[in-house]
Amino acid sequence: MKALVFHGDHNIALEDKPVPAIQKPTDVIVKMLKTTICGTDLGIYKGKNPEVEDGRILGHEGIGIVEEVGEGVRQYKKGDKVLISCITSCGSCESCKKQLYAHCKDGGWILGHLIDGTQAEYVRIPHADNSLFKLPAAIDDEIAVLLSDILPTGHEIGVQYGNVRPGDTIAIVGGGPIGMSVLLTAQFYSPSTIIVVDMDDNRLALAKEMGATHTINSGQENAVDAILAIAGEGVDVAIEAVGLPQTWDICQRIVRPGGHIANVGVHGKKVDFEIQELWIKNLTITTGLVNTNTTPMLIKAVSANRFDLSKLITHRFGLDEVEKAYDVFLNASREKAMKIIVNN
Amino acid sequence: MKALVFHGDHNIALEDKPVPAIQKPTDVIVKMLKTTICGTDLGIYKGKNPEVEDGRILGHEGIGIVEEVGEGVRQYKKGDKVLISCITSCGSCESCKKQLYAHCKDGGWILGHLIDGTQAEYVRIPHADNSLFKLPAAIDDEIAVLLSDILPTGHEIGVQYGNVRPGDTIAIVGGGPIGMSVLLTAQFYSPSTIIVVDMDDNRLALAKEMGATHTINSGQENAVDAILAIAGEGVDVAIEAVGLPQTWDICQRIVRPGGHIANVGVHGKKVDFEIQELWIKNLTITTGLVNTNTTPMLIKAVSANRFDLSKLITHRFGLDEVEKAYDVFLNASREKAMKIIVNN
Repeated sequence: MKALVFHGDHNIALEDKPVPAIQKPTDVIVKMLKTTICGTDLGIYKGKNPEVEDGRILGHEGIGIVEEVGEGVRQYKKGDKVLISCITSCGSCESCKKQLYAHCKDGGWILGHLIDGTQAEYVRIPHADNSLFKLPAAIDDEIAVLLSDILPTGHEIGVQYGNVRPGDTIAIVGGGPIGMSVLLTAQFYSPSTIIVVDMDDNRLALAKEMGATHTINSGQENAVDAILAIAGEGVDVAIEAVGLPQTWDICQRIVRPGGHIANVGVHGKKVDFEIQELWIKNLTITTGLVNTNTTPMLIKAVSANRFDLSKLITHRFGLDEVEKAYDVFLNASREKAMKIIVNN
Repeated sequence: MKALVFHGDHNIALEDKPVPAIQKPTDVIVKMLKTTICGTDLGIYKGKNPEVEDGRILGHEGIGIVEEVGEGVRQYKKGDKVLISCITSCGSCESCKKQLYAHCKDGGWILGHLIDGTQAEYVRIPHADNSLFKLPAAIDDEIAVLLSDILPTGHEIGVQYGNVRPGDTIAIVGGGPIGMSVLLTAQFYSPSTIIVVDMDDNRLALAKEMGATHTINSGQENAVDAILAIAGEGVDVAIEAVGLPQTWDICQRIVRPGGHIANVGVHGKKVDFEIQELWIKNLTITTGLVNTNTTPMLIKAVSANRFDLSKLITHRFGLDEVEKAYDVFLNASREKAMKIIVNN
């Protein structure tokens, strides 16, 4: 089969690989229909994840059709259309019993990371009963791909961990696919003011279309001053959706006493925590990898057309063009790319 | 009256000052019976709080007898024995309606900070109906003083913000009066393992007496290694009860995925936040000044003899000796001092 293979820092290639086989009774083999590229995939490409081995097939998102089922699988049969969760989880370890599926003792973020992933014609999904979701016919195939990772990540790690509540003033620092997922899912909880910060006017315009009440171009004005001009003594919730010291710093300077900072960004460096100012502010700061425990809820919300996700999808490629797709996503601002669909 | 007056960096003196008068109908004048010295008072003495004016009477803890009552006060009358909360709160502003009394728009931590405090013969308490508590006869006077600040601080900012739950493994980094208050109040929630870290063997021995299951002298061994040897993949809750970069750093290195870091310490410098390691760990980090919203509950718990607080009181002085009391508390380790009672 064709698959996108990692060969170390800045070295990926579409290659022929063997079709995966069932290894354990709880495995399923899925024939991929559609996948996408995540910021995390770019991180691996850039060499940020030394734990990823040469020869690894990348990708942890997508939808497909069940091709083969292990003897111990109860929920799925050949021919089922499934959503692949970016998080694999056994469902029965100590972490899973806390719904902390991200830290499953025999799973977590392993697809396209510690085991072969979804940017291929077929993928093996371990612990399939707890790591796949059935897809209702009401959900468009392209939209469904957004449910593997970015929508639950934005919702759980941004909105839920940030404790967004009716009437809140919130700031989303970063208007990429994750920031947009925060923007959309935050609206479930009816905040009164939603400020989106980015350096890209194209993304800010999209944010306005998708529900932001205010946008700030942090390349053109001081984001902290501009946010406090809107939010007075600070925002109730600041959501970090980039993963840089500068964007973390904006968040820690704009939150009001009793407020929340929800870090969603994947960071490569330590940051300064101004605890000499913040010890007294009764803040709650959260970090995290998505558990995908709200994916069933999000599937229902998307089925009910609670929001229009189609604007998040800007580009489409075939699997045979996946290297080009990476190139476009690596230059997302220039290419005005948000989320890219890769079709099998 | 006699009062301890701040005159700038390292300059305090017991002086004659006028007895305070009612300024607003919601004020009460309390004749002090007992007060104490807090780590925060030492911070002011050392010049950490430039907002404190020359001439300020220090102190924000203590008990006394109501001497005079403003026309608008409903709950107190002359002769009532009262506990003074370290937090003054109006009860009706936006912060108060969230029980975020620490950030009351017309209060918060003001006693001995922005208005005259309790290390004196008399003190004026604004918003008395919401800033005093009636003291049941069952509570010893010396013990009651611990309810002004340290017990609610340890309970709310350490234990409740840290979300200590039955069976948890917790680490308390710092065995001073606040760390000990965390140690005592954490036991309400039945953690299975309580590790106390300090550099003072005297304090560690006391921690063992008061319920610690393990103690670690961080001056003699690597605290992180020693904690992980006990806690495996990490503690459920790490409680910072010192306020230094080194003790923060221990906390961020010992917490398990899904765990909590509750910062109770008052910090004077920024710290490094190792977010490149921690973004993925689904942590909750909290900071805060006590709201004293659990003081009524703690009064009931102390009345019912739920724990022996008498061991926390190591020294007693008269108000005329308060400068000597500061000297002892400034050399707490040498003097084996924990909490000092100052008697009127």
